Amino acid sequence: MIIVLKPDATEAQIHYIEERVKKVGLTPMVSRGTQRTIIGVIGPEDVLRVTPLEVFPGVEKVLQVLAPYKLVSREFHPEDSIIDLGRGVKIGAKRIVPIAGPCAIENREMLKTIAKEIKAAGAQVLRGGAFKPRTSPYSFQGLGEEGLKLLKEVGEEFNLVTVTEVMDTRDVELVARNADVLQIGARNMQNFNLLKEVGSTKKPVILKRGLMSTVKELLMSAEYILSAGNFNVILCERGIRTFEDFTRNTLDISCVPAIKTLSHLPVIVDPSHASGKWGLVSPLALAGIAAGADGVLIEVHPKPEEALSDGAQSLLPEKFKELMIKMKAVAKAIGREV
Amino acid sequence: MIIVLKPDATEAQIHYIEERVKKVGLTPMVSRGTQRTIIGVIGPEDVLRVTPLEVFPGVEKVLQVLAPYKLVSREFHPEDSIIDLGRGVKIGAKRIVPIAGPCAIENREMLKTIAKEIKAAGAQVLRGGAFKPRTSPYSFQGLGEEGLKLLKEVGEEFNLVTVTEVMDTRDVELVARNADVLQIGARNMQNFNLLKEVGSTKKPVILKRGLMSTVKELLMSAEYILSAGNFNVILCERGIRTFEDFTRNTLDISCVPAIKTLSHLPVIVDPSHASGKWGLVSPLALAGIAAGADGVLIEVHPKPEEALSDGAQSLLPEKFKELMIKMKAVAKAIGREV
Amino acid sequence: MIIVLKPDATEAQIHYIEERVKKVGLTPMVSRGTQRTIIGVIGPEDVLRVTPLEVFPGVEKVLQVLAPYKLVSREFHPEDSIIDLGRGVKIGAKRIVPIAGPCAIENREMLKTIAKEIKAAGAQVLRGGAFKPRTSPYSFQGLGEEGLKLLKEVGEEFNLVTVTEVMDTRDVELVARNADVLQIGARNMQNFNLLKEVGSTKKPVILKRGLMSTVKELLMSAEYILSAGNFNVILCERGIRTFEDFTRNTLDISCVPAIKTLSHLPVIVDPSHASGKWGLVSPLALAGIAAGADGVLIEVHPKPEEALSDGAQSLLPEKFKELMIKMKAVAKAIGREV
Amino acid sequence: MIIVLKPDATEAQIHYIEERVKKVGLTPMVSRGTQRTIIGVIGPEDVLRVTPLEVFPGVEKVLQVLAPYKLVSREFHPEDSIIDLGRGVKIGAKRIVPIAGPCAIENREMLKTIAKEIKAAGAQVLRGGAFKPRTSPYSFQGLGEEGLKLLKEVGEEFNLVTVTEVMDTRDVELVARNADVLQIGARNMQNFNLLKEVGSTKKPVILKRGLMSTVKELLMSAEYILSAGNFNVILCERGIRTFEDFTRNTLDISCVPAIKTLSHLPVIVDPSHASGKWGLVSPLALAGIAAGADGVLIEVHPKPEEALSDGAQSLLPEKFKELMIKMKAVAKAIGREV
Repeated sequence: MIIVLKPDATEAQIHYIEERVKKVGLTPMVSRGTQRTIIGVIGPEDVLRVTPLEVFPGVEKVLQVLAPYKLVSREFHPEDSIIDLGRGVKIGAKRIVPIAGPCAIENREMLKTIAKEIKAAGAQVLRGGAFKPRTSPYSFQGLGEEGLKLLKEVGEEFNLVTVTEVMDTRDVELVARNADVLQIGARNMQNFNLLKEVGSTKKPVILKRGLMSTVKELLMSAEYILSAGNFNVILCERGIRTFEDFTRNTLDISCVPAIKTLSHLPVIVDPSHASGKWGLVSPLALAGIAAGADGVLIEVHPKPEEALSDGAQSLLPEKFKELMIKMKAVAKAIGREV
Repeated sequence: MIIVLKPDATEAQIHYIEERVKKVGLTPMVSRGTQRTIIGVIGPEDVLRVTPLEVFPGVEKVLQVLAPYKLVSREFHPEDSIIDLGRGVKIGAKRIVPIAGPCAIENREMLKTIAKEIKAAGAQVLRGGAFKPRTSPYSFQGLGEEGLKLLKEVGEEFNLVTVTEVMDTRDVELVARNADVLQIGARNMQNFNLLKEVGSTKKPVILKRGLMSTVKELLMSAEYILSAGNFNVILCERGIRTFEDFTRNTLDISCVPAIKTLSHLPVIVDPSHASGKWGLVSPLALAGIAAGADGVLIEVHPKPEEALSDGAQSLLPEKFKELMIKMKAVAKAIGREV
Repeated sequence: MIIVLKPDATEAQIHYIEERVKKVGLTPMVSRGTQRTIIGVIGPEDVLRVTPLEVFPGVEKVLQVLAPYKLVSREFHPEDSIIDLGRGVKIGAKRIVPIAGPCAIENREMLKTIAKEIKAAGAQVLRGGAFKPRTSPYSFQGLGEEGLKLLKEVGEEFNLVTVTEVMDTRDVELVARNADVLQIGARNMQNFNLLKEVGSTKKPVILKRGLMSTVKELLMSAEYILSAGNFNVILCERGIRTFEDFTRNTLDISCVPAIKTLSHLPVIVDPSHASGKWGLVSPLALAGIAAGADGVLIEVHPKPEEALSDGAQSLLPEKFKELMIKMKAVAKAIGREV
Repeated sequence: MIIVLKPDATEAQIHYIEERVKKVGLTPMVSRGTQRTIIGVIGPEDVLRVTPLEVFPGVEKVLQVLAPYKLVSREFHPEDSIIDLGRGVKIGAKRIVPIAGPCAIENREMLKTIAKEIKAAGAQVLRGGAFKPRTSPYSFQGLGEEGLKLLKEVGEEFNLVTVTEVMDTRDVELVARNADVLQIGARNMQNFNLLKEVGSTKKPVILKRGLMSTVKELLMSAEYILSAGNFNVILCERGIRTFEDFTRNTLDISCVPAIKTLSHLPVIVDPSHASGKWGLVSPLALAGIAAGADGVLIEVHPKPEEALSDGAQSLLPEKFKELMIKMKAVAKAIGREV
């Protein structure tokens, strides 16, 4: 931590800050420049983070030297984390994992149709929402517990790993009992109690980046889960909010290599939610793979025009099959496989 | 709802859409222009919102004519809503309501000191956090239930209305028992289960706008609470996230008159969280009042440098006193009072 | 400047950086912490700015200690700058300056009507565009030189200071000959050749903040003008681009007190362009004054529905008169005048 | 164009709008719904764009049916445009075009070294700046005319197409005489006079998207060039500004397939400027190709630490060679070539 002082900071003010730094067990190093005096703080700076140094008399600004996260950082764990999703599927290794399925689970027949199709296309992981976060209270809110049971049943029938969202601390146990992988939605990325709650299970968690969250904040949210004891976290980029309005959100493709630099956790992309337009899903999925993603999350629906949620961004099963073939080719080109 | 067709849409496609519109009880009106055919849909368009018309063959885009919210809209309720906070304090009328207090409740003595000071300055509402949403799992998370009890005790002692945040569906009943007004934080604006839960109480709710949310989405979140039966909602602008980095967030002052146009609900501003810098709080509070806000939320702390949360944005009690005097003057200039 | 090294930086790398720092005449100060070694650089750091220290082997990141601007900074010039616009009008002092007029100059009669009305309402500065930056090549592009002459004529007839935009380096001399104050539009805030060109005149310049520019970048653009010899710069906030779409742009009201902290230059707000909606102009103008602005830029048009540019955001003359009365009251409440 | 009326619009108001629509030669079609009356306007709606219908009494909002651009739209020109850059290089066809070189031209020797290296790696187009837009007036501003001459000389020696930026209307002729392709920088995307000026040449133009611009605005700016008679326009995505601060800007990868949907013009990506970090350039270049880009713009410098501009984002020649090999592989995977 570096404390930059105002040009008119007094000796008394400098002394006072030095004393405060020493009091918490750290070492201040004062360095007097021609235009500014700065105080470097040596030692584990965490103990100073709760002290609002910016308001100390004489302080102009405070610069952070170290990242505020630890367990998620690559410095802490230099090798890539490989997470076991069950049924022989691992994410974070050479093999890229496609995750496919409907936005919302609507009924048994539809879910089985989709499961069969994506399985045939080569996918091993089925997604489907039972609890749906909807901006309008008048929209379809999901089948709830009934949906979870259908997902479990269909996952077992087709030997597919299942992924579903959990939205409420009160539902974590129920969802964990019925699905293989828990998903935290973008709107809950900073629902800290929910993070702690899924951190107390040992289930793999897909943590979606908030629409207005930085990469650093995504890592801090993951830190909540790891610090609660669950290291099985997969980060997911699903688009951030910008002024561009042709797409629903802006897929921040750069965050894939950025996260790979900063963290050891696997990262996947969700081009369906990011773009909101099925016509853009394939090129964005391929871009995700080319950029280094460990998986892609694709919405698939046999009759998008009858979907109860997000039909406009769903691929037809035959389009998904074509995409799988292209993804295999691009993965191979960069030395990986799908 | 207006459905704009592609230039090459066929008669069969047009016919198919017309049939679908009729099937849900609405009336399609086809209008053939020189460059595009469009289909106007007459009737309550809600029933069509779940149908993803964008993916119908031949459709180029779909334009919404009506707002998706109802109970919160000024069209539904033309007069300003005035909400009773208890202890004789009403918000939404001529009198502007200042709400002041520490970011987090730290201990009894500190809370009493602040309560006394803000009361003396003329404020009637005390805020203080017992459950704190923090981006880092290693930061101070609030005193929890103990904090709630201190708040209740101090509120009663000084006859101040109390406001505190609730973050978890499991805590709503506990918080409602101890505080006069419930606050939903910016990060929970789209925690829909929490919205439903506070909607099932009759307590006044301050709903903070998410950092990433549009005014329309804020209104949709309020609609969740109203549609659950609780009409006592106060909207709060606390800064949105932009590329500007001198301030922590950007106070969207325009949303004050914008919300007044669209909705009957009271609206307040929180310049402390928006700017993150105590030096900007006073000018922004005055700007909020000049723009038409019904209240302001101000962080006050006697020793900001020792605050356990957000000290850098807290005003000293004497600065708050000065601000109260200026707020009275500006309120008077626009025909209101503080 | 602080250079933060990677955890695995070698002694040879540290030594190499030290040598480079010394070579440009600065003093490196190495400080070895428990988790990172950092190098503080003492001396005028400008000489290092062109050296991309981030790519030196062993460097993790580089933190700036000093602001990159000088002439515009309050540190360089602690008192508020007061700029003489001519005809006895000064900006930056106690008196707030309203600037009013049509978006585009359409014809003599219309301009005279507006000039008469705003004069009667108490304004002393007339704005009107002769060269219009329009996003579409098919929109009205302004009257050009003819418009400039009308502006000059009407300004003299009514004894009003005149303001108009210059868009092209080739037009600076022509515009400077016909108007009292030059305006640089938001889209040209980083048209550096144009900045240098207006910097070579002595005319007062209103520099509008770009839709996607930070306060720091606005100050850097002003630095271009000052460093070319023209210190008569007025900064203007006219809305930044965010995801919010109810308003055309988001008026960043916080930048008014922020700029006052960082710089000595006067700052004004333009609520007409920021909101794009005439119904929001008055509350935002009042908010601007309450926040400390030195002036406001208001579009006024007698027949907004026939305006050739931006009619939707123009006030009728009678609405402008009402606003002037309210502005006087708010200005008085904060110890200033209009 | 669809005019949505307020719930309380009167017959007189409706009649007045109908008359205004008829007056400009269009046909109004009034449709009375249960909650709103709407007026559809049939005919070429351009003539109405300058009329601010939003301010007509009784109007709630106006919805655009048609895009405001024409010449650039795929509707106008369904096939992909293929643009001849000279020296046998075409862009927009099956073959993807890598463009490489230094940010700024520093001297003859350096430029020749880079030209030789990129040529050896298989690139056919050399970029290099002679006029540099810099946020600080104190930064290196480019060699100007001398740089242009070096670029021409080196391009001829190595038989490479040359690209360089033009920033000032006064320099268009000079730059056009010395370079094969003109570049309009992001900060000048809405410098409309400059667009018209390059539109009056026949030189291919790379038009960079502004940091703050939507895809639609980029297309409108291209429309300026095409409408001035020059159809040789290549669009370039170079990152937009968002709240994310790990990267300098956010590469909006979705705009590649979005532009391909809306327009016939070639589109390229610039991962060097977008990310500002050389470590991210390769994955982003590959993502651009996977998403369908027709070219990539890569900064290459033999000694990034001594570069006078943007060294932190430059690839070493050997890294560029490795990237070329990967680009070939990914291009092949999607049925194209480099």
